[in-house]
Amino acid sequence: MNWPAHGSNPRYLYEAMGLTLPKEYVDYSANINPLGPPPSLKEKWMDFYQEIHVYPDPFASGLKERIAKKEQIPVESILIGNGGAELIALAARKFSGKKIVIIQPAFSEYEKNCRVNQCEIVYHQLHGPEFELDLADLQSSLIGATALFICNPNNPTGIQYPASTILSIMDECEQQNCSVILDEAFYDFLVDYHSFLPYINQYSNLIIIRSMTKMFAIPGIRLGYLVAEPSVIQDLTELQSHWSTNAIALLAGELCLQEEGFLKETQNYIFQERKRLFNFFQNQNFMVTPSDVNFYLMRDPYLKDQMELFEFLLHNGLIPRHTFNFPGLEGSWLRFAIKGSEENDRLLEVLVKWRQLHPLSL
Amino acid sequence: MNWPAHGSNPRYLYEAMGLTLPKEYVDYSANINPLGPPPSLKEKWMDFYQEIHVYPDPFASGLKERIAKKEQIPVESILIGNGGAELIALAARKFSGKKIVIIQPAFSEYEKNCRVNQCEIVYHQLHGPEFELDLADLQSSLIGATALFICNPNNPTGIQYPASTILSIMDECEQQNCSVILDEAFYDFLVDYHSFLPYINQYSNLIIIRSMTKMFAIPGIRLGYLVAEPSVIQDLTELQSHWSTNAIALLAGELCLQEEGFLKETQNYIFQERKRLFNFFQNQNFMVTPSDVNFYLMRDPYLKDQMELFEFLLHNGLIPRHTFNFPGLEGSWLRFAIKGSEENDRLLEVLVKWRQLHPLSL
Repeated sequence: MNWPAHGSNPRYLYEAMGLTLPKEYVDYSANINPLGPPPSLKEKWMDFYQEIHVYPDPFASGLKERIAKKEQIPVESILIGNGGAELIALAARKFSGKKIVIIQPAFSEYEKNCRVNQCEIVYHQLHGPEFELDLADLQSSLIGATALFICNPNNPTGIQYPASTILSIMDECEQQNCSVILDEAFYDFLVDYHSFLPYINQYSNLIIIRSMTKMFAIPGIRLGYLVAEPSVIQDLTELQSHWSTNAIALLAGELCLQEEGFLKETQNYIFQERKRLFNFFQNQNFMVTPSDVNFYLMRDPYLKDQMELFEFLLHNGLIPRHTFNFPGLEGSWLRFAIKGSEENDRLLEVLVKWRQLHPLSL
Repeated sequence: MNWPAHGSNPRYLYEAMGLTLPKEYVDYSANINPLGPPPSLKEKWMDFYQEIHVYPDPFASGLKERIAKKEQIPVESILIGNGGAELIALAARKFSGKKIVIIQPAFSEYEKNCRVNQCEIVYHQLHGPEFELDLADLQSSLIGATALFICNPNNPTGIQYPASTILSIMDECEQQNCSVILDEAFYDFLVDYHSFLPYINQYSNLIIIRSMTKMFAIPGIRLGYLVAEPSVIQDLTELQSHWSTNAIALLAGELCLQEEGFLKETQNYIFQERKRLFNFFQNQNFMVTPSDVNFYLMRDPYLKDQMELFEFLLHNGLIPRHTFNFPGLEGSWLRFAIKGSEENDRLLEVLVKWRQLHPLSL
């Protein structure tokens, strides 16, 4: 089957499966803040209109200054991008033709962009249901590698690796002159995330990518930033097309960075709702990954692959993310975003129905 | 001096010149429709807000279908991009390391992106004030070339090359297996533009790039499209980062393509206003290029370089586009966008003052 490469835009999934997209559906396949964008964004939206007839600031100075101040890093260490996807593409292009290690399962854009840039790709495969990461296992893969892609907290598992593990990997890579491309797209869904930004002065090979579209629910307008040593930022800026980040994204970004209260509210909501969902899954004998963020992998352990459950959910208008294009998963899990309470209730309701049809004594 | 690479964002220009940006200024340096975006866009702007929390359609199917229908070309021949700049970057990348001919003077992004992709760059230099293009002069440059960048109507001169000349170049390039990258960013400001889109089936090496940000005055939100043979579109799609065109741009694009009346109104306004301006320039002994579009090059023929006039205008809060980074111009002209009548009047007023201070009998 020609599976869509990503979640969201469910009509492509239904098309690929030869099904008709129902009029009413709930899309759990995109890991976006269920509270929606911060309300201030809607209030300012008409003001943003005034900016569309002017070219965006190609240096994104205003937004860079705000990030620099908030994160206590130099402006010269920041690159603003047209969503995390563009920044991943730029990072992969910097290492064209080189050996790159990808800790799998991971966001499929790492591999896609490594392929486009003729990199030699090596998987370091983690195994479920814990997906534990250990430097000792990784070491042999790192020999001769120029860069390592690592996603923390991980997409698709939702698991946060221990800070000490990441640090030990950073140390090892620094010694081997291997860049660490650390994708922190979901770091801000965690109350107590151990940030690695303070290490950018110390580790010259560290490249951190952050998305602003997940927490602030603005994937439609595209915004992310990358943090690294100034010389790396210069190299990547050269590769970036001019006016790459649109003016609306720049304005929205400046606004969102001031939304501390909204951030806390989201973190608390996700924490509580995840607890509620995971209790249900445990009681109903569904297996889940120990996620720390706003999405998780789930499977019915009584099924070998999850196709039957996947189809059952789709027929009910509930749309999880398929995992057929995640190496090491290949359909054996389904990924769900934590949505609003009512939508999560709807999922639990349908899963109760599923469990009645597929009781434990299979 | 560290001249800004592009117009718009005038604070960078004033900074580079060690001047303070006045509170009131008129920016003639960006070639954007002076009528602003079509009014329907403002009416729909709040509706667009509803789309920001969803990922953009990565295949831009709706917009592609609309373009295909309007231009009578196959959907498979269309690539939607994050502004013309991204499409130029993708086209240059396709020809990495190859010999590329650029007809100069031209939009500086062609050369910038050829350099980034280690191309061998050959200028084919046209000369003012007519900037005439002739296949015979070009032929020797084309030997061994893999691609040719040509901008028609040309930026920065505003001149439309004869269709027969473009066609003769397309024929020659087809024979030499050299791709023609034809940038039509400003084609729609012309009432009677000879479109080259119908030739894409006949010329397998033809790549046409169109911007939607100039006519519809939406450079802040970034939108353009590229038309070529389906296999070329596939290659370029591979190189493009995922979700590159934001959802607002896609929605705005679909709306703008229905704005036939707005387009005609713009074309008529530009035609009339250009006539009025050019009459003045002739009477006051300023030299202009025979532009067919919404901008033109202008110079005071009594000055060797135009620095003194440039500074005079900047001190009066009128901001032309410097031409120091256009090969063959190097500051000997200034570029002006045709703005609203009042703003154009302001320019004429200040130029009268200039002429009084610098009379013809210098």
